[in-house]
Amino acid sequence: MNASTLRTLLQQLQSGNLSIDQTLDRFRNLPFESLGYANVDHHRMLRQGVPEAILCEGKTEAQVLGIARGILKQGVAVLATRADSKIARALKRLHKKAVHHQEARMVVIQQKPPKAQGDILVLTAGTADIPVAEETKVTASVLGSRVELLCDIGVAGVHRLLHNLERIQQARVVVVVAGMDGVLPTVVSGLIDKPVVAVPTSQGYGSHFGGIAPLLTMLNACSGGIGVVNIDNGFGAGYLAHRINLLPGR
Amino acid sequence: MNASTLRTLLQQLQSGNLSIDQTLDRFRNLPFESLGYANVDHHRMLRQGVPEAILCEGKTEAQVLGIARGILKQGVAVLATRADSKIARALKRLHKKAVHHQEARMVVIQQKPPKAQGDILVLTAGTADIPVAEETKVTASVLGSRVELLCDIGVAGVHRLLHNLERIQQARVVVVVAGMDGVLPTVVSGLIDKPVVAVPTSQGYGSHFGGIAPLLTMLNACSGGIGVVNIDNGFGAGYLAHRINLLPGR
Amino acid sequence: MNASTLRTLLQQLQSGNLSIDQTLDRFRNLPFESLGYANVDHHRMLRQGVPEAILCEGKTEAQVLGIARGILKQGVAVLATRADSKIARALKRLHKKAVHHQEARMVVIQQKPPKAQGDILVLTAGTADIPVAEETKVTASVLGSRVELLCDIGVAGVHRLLHNLERIQQARVVVVVAGMDGVLPTVVSGLIDKPVVAVPTSQGYGSHFGGIAPLLTMLNACSGGIGVVNIDNGFGAGYLAHRINLLPGR
Amino acid sequence: MNASTLRTLLQQLQSGNLSIDQTLDRFRNLPFESLGYANVDHHRMLRQGVPEAILCEGKTEAQVLGIARGILKQGVAVLATRADSKIARALKRLHKKAVHHQEARMVVIQQKPPKAQGDILVLTAGTADIPVAEETKVTASVLGSRVELLCDIGVAGVHRLLHNLERIQQARVVVVVAGMDGVLPTVVSGLIDKPVVAVPTSQGYGSHFGGIAPLLTMLNACSGGIGVVNIDNGFGAGYLAHRINLLPGR
Amino acid sequence: MNASTLRTLLQQLQSGNLSIDQTLDRFRNLPFESLGYANVDHHRMLRQGVPEAILCEGKTEAQVLGIARGILKQGVAVLATRADSKIARALKRLHKKAVHHQEARMVVIQQKPPKAQGDILVLTAGTADIPVAEETKVTASVLGSRVELLCDIGVAGVHRLLHNLERIQQARVVVVVAGMDGVLPTVVSGLIDKPVVAVPTSQGYGSHFGGIAPLLTMLNACSGGIGVVNIDNGFGAGYLAHRINLLPGR
Amino acid sequence: MNASTLRTLLQQLQSGNLSIDQTLDRFRNLPFESLGYANVDHHRMLRQGVPEAILCEGKTEAQVLGIARGILKQGVAVLATRADSKIARALKRLHKKAVHHQEARMVVIQQKPPKAQGDILVLTAGTADIPVAEETKVTASVLGSRVELLCDIGVAGVHRLLHNLERIQQARVVVVVAGMDGVLPTVVSGLIDKPVVAVPTSQGYGSHFGGIAPLLTMLNACSGGIGVVNIDNGFGAGYLAHRINLLPGR
Amino acid sequence: MNASTLRTLLQQLQSGNLSIDQTLDRFRNLPFESLGYANVDHHRMLRQGVPEAILCEGKTEAQVLGIARGILKQGVAVLATRADSKIARALKRLHKKAVHHQEARMVVIQQKPPKAQGDILVLTAGTADIPVAEETKVTASVLGSRVELLCDIGVAGVHRLLHNLERIQQARVVVVVAGMDGVLPTVVSGLIDKPVVAVPTSQGYGSHFGGIAPLLTMLNACSGGIGVVNIDNGFGAGYLAHRINLLPGR
Amino acid sequence: MNASTLRTLLQQLQSGNLSIDQTLDRFRNLPFESLGYANVDHHRMLRQGVPEAILCEGKTEAQVLGIARGILKQGVAVLATRADSKIARALKRLHKKAVHHQEARMVVIQQKPPKAQGDILVLTAGTADIPVAEETKVTASVLGSRVELLCDIGVAGVHRLLHNLERIQQARVVVVVAGMDGVLPTVVSGLIDKPVVAVPTSQGYGSHFGGIAPLLTMLNACSGGIGVVNIDNGFGAGYLAHRINLLPGR
Repeated sequence: MNASTLRTLLQQLQSGNLSIDQTLDRFRNLPFESLGYANVDHHRMLRQGVPEAILCEGKTEAQVLGIARGILKQGVAVLATRADSKIARALKRLHKKAVHHQEARMVVIQQKPPKAQGDILVLTAGTADIPVAEETKVTASVLGSRVELLCDIGVAGVHRLLHNLERIQQARVVVVVAGMDGVLPTVVSGLIDKPVVAVPTSQGYGSHFGGIAPLLTMLNACSGGIGVVNIDNGFGAGYLAHRINLLPGR
Repeated sequence: MNASTLRTLLQQLQSGNLSIDQTLDRFRNLPFESLGYANVDHHRMLRQGVPEAILCEGKTEAQVLGIARGILKQGVAVLATRADSKIARALKRLHKKAVHHQEARMVVIQQKPPKAQGDILVLTAGTADIPVAEETKVTASVLGSRVELLCDIGVAGVHRLLHNLERIQQARVVVVVAGMDGVLPTVVSGLIDKPVVAVPTSQGYGSHFGGIAPLLTMLNACSGGIGVVNIDNGFGAGYLAHRINLLPGR
Repeated sequence: MNASTLRTLLQQLQSGNLSIDQTLDRFRNLPFESLGYANVDHHRMLRQGVPEAILCEGKTEAQVLGIARGILKQGVAVLATRADSKIARALKRLHKKAVHHQEARMVVIQQKPPKAQGDILVLTAGTADIPVAEETKVTASVLGSRVELLCDIGVAGVHRLLHNLERIQQARVVVVVAGMDGVLPTVVSGLIDKPVVAVPTSQGYGSHFGGIAPLLTMLNACSGGIGVVNIDNGFGAGYLAHRINLLPGR
Repeated sequence: MNASTLRTLLQQLQSGNLSIDQTLDRFRNLPFESLGYANVDHHRMLRQGVPEAILCEGKTEAQVLGIARGILKQGVAVLATRADSKIARALKRLHKKAVHHQEARMVVIQQKPPKAQGDILVLTAGTADIPVAEETKVTASVLGSRVELLCDIGVAGVHRLLHNLERIQQARVVVVVAGMDGVLPTVVSGLIDKPVVAVPTSQGYGSHFGGIAPLLTMLNACSGGIGVVNIDNGFGAGYLAHRINLLPGR
Repeated sequence: MNASTLRTLLQQLQSGNLSIDQTLDRFRNLPFESLGYANVDHHRMLRQGVPEAILCEGKTEAQVLGIARGILKQGVAVLATRADSKIARALKRLHKKAVHHQEARMVVIQQKPPKAQGDILVLTAGTADIPVAEETKVTASVLGSRVELLCDIGVAGVHRLLHNLERIQQARVVVVVAGMDGVLPTVVSGLIDKPVVAVPTSQGYGSHFGGIAPLLTMLNACSGGIGVVNIDNGFGAGYLAHRINLLPGR
Repeated sequence: MNASTLRTLLQQLQSGNLSIDQTLDRFRNLPFESLGYANVDHHRMLRQGVPEAILCEGKTEAQVLGIARGILKQGVAVLATRADSKIARALKRLHKKAVHHQEARMVVIQQKPPKAQGDILVLTAGTADIPVAEETKVTASVLGSRVELLCDIGVAGVHRLLHNLERIQQARVVVVVAGMDGVLPTVVSGLIDKPVVAVPTSQGYGSHFGGIAPLLTMLNACSGGIGVVNIDNGFGAGYLAHRINLLPGR
Repeated sequence: MNASTLRTLLQQLQSGNLSIDQTLDRFRNLPFESLGYANVDHHRMLRQGVPEAILCEGKTEAQVLGIARGILKQGVAVLATRADSKIARALKRLHKKAVHHQEARMVVIQQKPPKAQGDILVLTAGTADIPVAEETKVTASVLGSRVELLCDIGVAGVHRLLHNLERIQQARVVVVVAGMDGVLPTVVSGLIDKPVVAVPTSQGYGSHFGGIAPLLTMLNACSGGIGVVNIDNGFGAGYLAHRINLLPGR
Repeated sequence: MNASTLRTLLQQLQSGNLSIDQTLDRFRNLPFESLGYANVDHHRMLRQGVPEAILCEGKTEAQVLGIARGILKQGVAVLATRADSKIARALKRLHKKAVHHQEARMVVIQQKPPKAQGDILVLTAGTADIPVAEETKVTASVLGSRVELLCDIGVAGVHRLLHNLERIQQARVVVVVAGMDGVLPTVVSGLIDKPVVAVPTSQGYGSHFGGIAPLLTMLNACSGGIGVVNIDNGFGAGYLAHRINLLPGR
């Protein structure tokens, strides 16, 4: 309910097409729109095919399917994260357009992919970080960003990083996915002037504490320009990178 | 040393304008440039008046002054963070253009402020979070961003937030500074579609653990689009927000 | 053994109906009553059909059945929590009135449900928090409270919460169950003036640390009026909410 | 803007007293009211003399005074917590009715104390826990609850507790304040059937970790009916106990 | 004192340049050599049939059997802890006197049980703590202590504890095994004047953190006279209690 | 009120020397004694000159003096721990027999020292651990144990330890006080067969975390027979060692 | 590309043997060499048969095989760590020289073992630490160090350690692998004057926290000369010990 | 082997019943006695002028002076660490050769500095890390190593590091001192083939947790060859680096 549909509603009341009780009912049934005008546009845009995410972990298959059906009814694309193969099969049975991105543990149901815009570059420090990076890539792609993935350019051999420096400096947003000691975002951000989204992963052992080590490294990075997301949160990184990437010229 | 200047150098050697030893010397004397071509431009741009930061905490007054002098010699602006009043006085004695932003605990030495571009909005959940927010504001302003600060719109009374919703939805980047339970970024990000930079502060007590509580809240935020920086890292938030804010149109 | 039965006992001694040794024996055989007078009534009331809980986790099937039999002998209802399906089947074999609340992981054996009193409202932030909320609901219902459950009204979309505001403000006690960042209790408590019981859940990943993130959020909530229970402790929340709900008028 | 004022507004439109643009303006200018109908009343009630709290820690004297002035202008009482003596003197200069509760580290500015209702009992395990308990007592008293304080009845000598059992069982709400190992709430809650609010304190040393030890004890209490607040959060305990205490009969 | 200087010393003795007493003095004044005397006897005593423990966790079946064989060769009894049923079967194949204490997860191989001396009382707060308590009981029994076990007398109903007070006050050493909030040792130690060995268990969930909650409770116990062992360390508690129990009269 | 005094009371009632109301009054006025028979003796014994401890930290001077006065009135000795010099001076003004043990941060008020019995040996790993060890020594001495202190025999030079082995093996109880890595109790307990009380201290830095490092070392000690107390808890160690030391022959 | 090969390149340009474009291509294709002159030699040396490690954990079988093939193509040996038996079989199918070190969980593919140099001694505190120690041994052996392994000489019986003292004092580097309380490195380093590499293991339970206890012990060791690696990081210890062991005479 | 059996052994030698070789064999075969031989020389060597360290923190001035006097009496040099200026002045009064290294917070008393051998290079990531690095430098120098210090070559600008690469690759041992995110050791070790000693410092704030962040980074370093010491442990790093540096050729 943006300003113009609100106006239409009031006009209908004014013109006698709606009674006051009918108008009040419309308000009651549209409680979200009453929140704030600008918000409405925001919601409308969201509802036109833009994916809505379901975190499958902790939900039953029936719950995931139920939520997916609800989303599809609104004409919105579905983006199921942390979907195991059982959930994936169920979603593929639900909708023929469902695509299972196995490495990213995601299922996407989207009528037609949006035009890829901007330039997000996703880097991984190691091979084991790839699933999280794939989650980032699929997320941002489905939302409408152009995304490229460069793997295994960790700092243990800093030349691998420097070798790709020019490409890295071209990107609008760089997402750096790293487990172990998580030092890659520090080094990358020190070499570029664009925003860096850092994703610690749970790859490691011992005092790695399931990702705390790289998380702390990234939060304490001695080079600036880095925003950190939760451990293994490839989806969150993709969503944030997409928001940044799609910023219009100022 | 980008590709074309490297070509020129080699042409000078080829044409006999430089001897091999002279060419080798050029290489030796330009070690940074040998890293990567684009990097050079990047550095040059950085050196033209863009501030370089000094974290004063843990440094002696003599060290801070020494570093500041070094930066000024390069014609670069100085941005001293976490400067106590003693350091501030010393920097003001060092340079007449030094400005002490007391609440932000910063000293800035800048020949002339850059033109304010874009639109960064900094929100604080509470009054006690203002010093960190001020650090963000000064940092991004000095770097060349237009920044506005809205204080004390925490979630305990959610109407304060909704009251400012329209303004919040207009900004290019929103920085949310919050101590205590740190819930503000979650709520804000759920209402807008622009990137959010979240800054946990050390304001709180008991199981707050000096900022761990809001830090974890922000990392686990159930609404996406949030990049987190270190506890009390107003400088880092300002720098990241500036990088995002200055992105050109894609 | 309250004051009057103690008096009766002493009168029986005085009148020669009991010897001193018999009187001493009565004392020995009633050790609990010697604790405190009021306590006796309290215990008696507890023993008339009020459920007693068995935390099944960490106990063998034989132990659970043994304890359940002991409780039933006292004419008290049984409330088995964290019961897996194997334990549930065994309890159903033990007693025909046993009811298995699968989502809540509970088995209840109760002769006849008490009259539902008062008004407890249980909210969940997400779908994955429902099992804990169900545990709260079953617990408080079995104890004699009227309980209603509203699911998935998390803060990522604050309109879902505001949509239900009127209902929330009507309840005597509101239990808020939330994983991830656990921000819902803060927002809810800021909108009402009744006691809030907050239950962090282990739903989340990475720096969520199995529920520490929402636990800290709730303990540091910037709006007051919130009492926190252990992570995933749906039973404890139901019990506390019931105690509050049944308070008579002052 | 509750249902009836909304109806009035629409009637004015219908009857031609307001144009559509004027009606839309009313919507724009009343953002809070659009949130939820009951909320309005709720806020109004809150604003009639009920104290609003200022956490002084982390705020400058000027900020505390500014906020206090703002609250007083609304005709609301002021409840300043964690006020050091410097802040206390400033508040006493600000308003002649300001009372400094030194042990509780609070300053209260209240036109006339409300009638004390209900029955809150605050227990402390040790002498060193008294300041936190005093904060609870002052808070709930100022809000309108009748509060009594019983000190130093810790479990090391369980007879001290049992000695007071009858009084404890009479209270509507029991607040238990305990540092060290924090076992008192467990024992108390096992002896009564009313809600218990547990407050861990930072009194202790070594592996006490500034209150983590009693906090965990309380969260894991093996007797139910306990709601926990943050370490040293006497204010929060008082506010929660008051909300519970003032519940009308169901 | 390397081989050659030792040889020289002995030669001086042999040649009469040093008396035996002078030679002994040289030994005494060289720190290491004085170490050993009493120790030898001590070791000999230990080797006469006193059990030696094998922690099976983390060892292969072959390793456990190898170590057991080595111990048996020395004529010492074997006490295998944390033995799963596979290890248990293997040890029973190894030696016909092997006894599997299933609940305690232990296997004992002992030619003939020593005479039971003294009086150790083991208490558990809950039913789920019994396996750890059994480990304590078996350990101390096998070493030669008389041990009794009293289960499920936790503090949630303090009368269960007080009911057994006389028996508890009689014991020479009381071992208290408790999970959840771990408050039992505090209460027990406040009622007796004998040493208490406290064993936190991993029974609990959420903020229990696998036993950290009761561990901290016990370390911070506000009543003295308590020595704490590692989480779930029934063996260690039994060994310590045995050392205390067997102290001769002073 | 043990069995025989209870019998006497009942006989007085039976013989008409007490009315029923008088008998009930006796019950009411003796609530502690009703707890358990043996407990009475225990309490009586405790009240005859045995010191009662005051943890001064967190208490005001007035509170400490008030408690001390209360203890002295009962004819019991006072043992004030963690007393700074200001408190010490005040206690010395309160009572002429007050002795300030400065290194131990204790003040003792005791009519006449008890006869020293048994044999407690206190070892420190380093010089900086001495204050805690002194607290242990003073505590156990005041309670009536014979205590000896051996300092700075840490494991960095294992010969220092072995040099004292014979003495260590003679003691009835060994208290080991160690900061840094806290390895001394492991090594000591492996060399003796008597109970070891281990006290971690806060001496160390960095990843020592104020005593967590030695605390964990001691809890995980690979040699058995060790009971651990809280970090820096010299008092607790002394009290536990005394309870063990005074055990009569079995 | 050291100084002389750079000179040669430039001479080829100067002499017309290379065009400018060809010279630029050489630069582009040798990006690593441009990093630093000495680095080149370093890399070359590394590529002559020195193993390169693959951490198998977190990688798919296909990824491990792919990386192994890449390494083998460069003529370098493969050292796969944390390889389960499935990966091991796959690597044995890939290359006939693949050797599976089962206890060490490693697979090595090496044309011919290098000559064993120097003297590394690996000690384990317990039997359960052997797998980690084997990983150290295989790693350093494959790299070219002579390695010996001494197991189960923990400190609980310090004589086992002292018995091997002479051998320990002979080694060039001593690696100490210990779980539980991790005290062995402290004691060993106090007895020798060579570098000690300490490896905490995850062997333990309860407050061991998966290796944190021995890790902290080692970091806080009161004897110096100890470098610590990550929990269970046998590979890292072997690599570090090898680097130290191969240092030429100064 | 107690005193009497030792005496018997010597008598057998004296009387000719045992040869010297037989007597020596008896010593060898008795485990404890074999410990000591080599060790003795080792100790003697240590005692000839090699410094012995005093950690001043936690010790009184009198204790430090007493220990220093004891060391000097043995003709050994004194190395006092973490000495504040008060202790420094006292040590300078004690001995005229005492030198106060202010930045390193050390006092050294050494008759004549040993010849500087080998080549240790100490790097710091930032200016604030210099005090710890100075402690390393002074320690290793005093022990007899040649040490050079390179400051402020952190990774935020990786060119600063690469600029010094040649020098870094020449060193025998590299000590890397870093606070903040602690990434420098990872990058350095990836570029060289010599042992790296990593020292995390407490320089940082927020989620830095007093050095935990860089400590974890270093323990999880994705490049090998790194041994980690405690946070701020410049002394330990210097001592370890010296042990490595002084290794003779193999």
